[in-house]
Amino acid sequence: MTCLFCRIVAGEIPAKQVYADDVALAFLDINPWHRGHTLVIPRRHVTDVVSDQAALAEIAPAIQATAELLIGRLGADGINLLSNNGAAAGQEVFHLHVHLIPRFAATGGFAAMAAPDSDIDLDEVYQQISRS
Amino acid sequence: MTCLFCRIVAGEIPAKQVYADDVALAFLDINPWHRGHTLVIPRRHVTDVVSDQAALAEIAPAIQATAELLIGRLGADGINLLSNNGAAAGQEVFHLHVHLIPRFAATGGFAAMAAPDSDIDLDEVYQQISRS
Repeated sequence: MTCLFCRIVAGEIPAKQVYADDVALAFLDINPWHRGHTLVIPRRHVTDVVSDQAALAEIAPAIQATAELLIGRLGADGINLLSNNGAAAGQEVFHLHVHLIPRFAATGGFAAMAAPDSDIDLDEVYQQISRS
Repeated sequence: MTCLFCRIVAGEIPAKQVYADDVALAFLDINPWHRGHTLVIPRRHVTDVVSDQAALAEIAPAIQATAELLIGRLGADGINLLSNNGAAAGQEVFHLHVHLIPRFAATGGFAAMAAPDSDIDLDEVYQQISRS
């Protein structure tokens, strides 16, 4: 199994999982653009939104629930959803994924969105999202 | 009715509609970032993805079908999906919408995505998508 995200689904590669249901997983992006940057993926291998008629609808409830979680636990003021489909659109892992990028009033407009922020402490973010 | 997109749904404001089903509409963005930049919206008024548990799943089939259409008709090499939820995330019209941004091998990476291109001829794009 060579697909990175299939290996995360299989538990072969660790990930900071923040949400899961029968068909989808959500885990922290290891190169977050903003605090709480999360990926939602289908458990089954789907290349992208275009190639599968059902996948986006399948993972939509997980996207919505994870967005609520990021707002409730991290106090995000908004959420960008982004999905890159195809190499020409910037897709790098060819297993469908939707980025959930929490936005905070302090972090500025769209132009401020698209760069990794290496100062973010993933463990600390994970603790805050996962607290019971 | 003051919501711009509700008025488009009602036919009170014209839009270059490229796809429709019972619950969703797709029409060309009037400030396209790339050729064929399209918005998919639910027909019913929903503010954003976070505020409604069902809306994203409802419009997911229209998103997938419109992405296929843009690839098939315009020859796009990839598609970015983007949805801004909340003012802090850059949302400007507070009726849920997902941007479908066709990407062409020639148009460069993610950094080239986020600026309107006023040279795009919407009528010409509409003709190409809508031809039978």
